[in-house]
Parts: sequence; C-alpha cells; structure tokens
Amino acid sequence: MKRMGMVIGVAPERVAEYKRLHAAVWPGVLARIAASGIRNYTIYLREPENLLFACWEYHGTDFEADMAAIAADPETQRWWTFTDPCQRPLESRAPGEHWAMMEEVFHVD
Amino acid sequence: MKRMGMVIGVAPERVAEYKRLHAAVWPGVLARIAASGIRNYTIYLREPENLLFACWEYHGTDFEADMAAIAADPETQRWWTFTDPCQRPLESRAPGEHWAMMEEVFHVD
Repeated sequence: MKRMGMVIGVAPERVAEYKRLHAAVWPGVLARIAASGIRNYTIYLREPENLLFACWEYHGTDFEADMAAIAADPETQRWWTFTDPCQRPLESRAPGEHWAMMEEVFHVD
Repeated sequence: MKRMGMVIGVAPERVAEYKRLHAAVWPGVLARIAASGIRNYTIYLREPENLLFACWEYHGTDFEADMAAIAADPETQRWWTFTDPCQRPLESRAPGEHWAMMEEVFHVD
C-alpha cells in the first residue's frame, strides 16, 4: 500500500458548489476509483487560502494504468465537467498533472 | 473516530532539516501522541509553495484534553524547539492555533 497526497486550488466563489458536489459524489465515480485501488480517500479544504488537500491509500500495483482507467471512464469524465470549473490547478504542477502531487515526509500508524 | 487535517508553512531553507527530523521522530514524542489517541498520522510536503499538510485519525473522546496532555509533555516541548523554527504558521490561523485546522469536504473508505 502506498499513501499519496495531492493539492489543488479552489475558486473561492465555487467553494459552496464544490462542497455540495462532494456531499453526494456519483456512485459510478466512487465505484471507478475503488476499482482503481483507491481507499480511505479524504479531501480537506483550507480557507481563506482556498486550497484542497487530498490524501488516499493506493492498494493497486500499476498506478499509471489505474489512473488511466479512471480518466477513460465516461461517467468520471462527465463528473469532471462539474468539478474542473471549481478547481484552480497550481502553477507549479508538473506537466500532465491536474492535482499536484505532494511528498510524504512523516508517517506513523 | 474523527479524521482531522491541518496545514502550516515551512521555511524553504529549513525543509531538509524538517525532513531529517521527521525521518526519526523521538520515541517519546510518538508515544505521547499515541497516548492522546492519534493514529494513522501522515505529513505531506508541497514545494515550491512550502506547505506542510498533516492528517490523522483521532480515536479519543476529549480532544482538547488530549492535545493539552501533548502540550504539557516535556519531551514534546523539547521536540518543538527543533520543529517550531522550521515552521511558518499561516497568518490566517485561528487564535491559539499553530497548525491551522482544515475542513473535511469528502471522504470515502
């Protein structure tokens, strides 16, 4: 299992909408991320910096393929048409990133 | 159990030191946070924004008392004399905060 964390900005005028969407994430979207080995997935919001922090446990063996399967899922693509307008990707993100990956510097069970 | 997330800045010139400290957190510090009901505690670093994002599960019943017990622990106080100079608390933090609390907006097991 690998823990992973990511960060992205959120448009301040879309915070309420982002929360409302995530209070009832579509079952197909949840099923797709579960099928891709994502577990214990949490998103935190920090205001007034307007940042979203996400963390999860990845239980699969081919992360790139598992992420590609999520990106190829039509229902997830439709879901992203709702969430993308709320998000403001960091300027510093790596090529190809939407959420920007973070580095784990400490863990204790 | 309650999931909790916090954020704080890190001085860019202290990132290496912060990582080195957290690669070998003192056993007494770990024992004290465990005794205060903290489990599955992870800290992520984001550069170049120089932010630390921490998340944990709180398994106790009196969070304020459990945090006070940590703050009263002499070894933890000494530990903080090493970590505090690395950190840059957010201007927006609430009165009495060092790390700034975040709001959970999504979770799936």
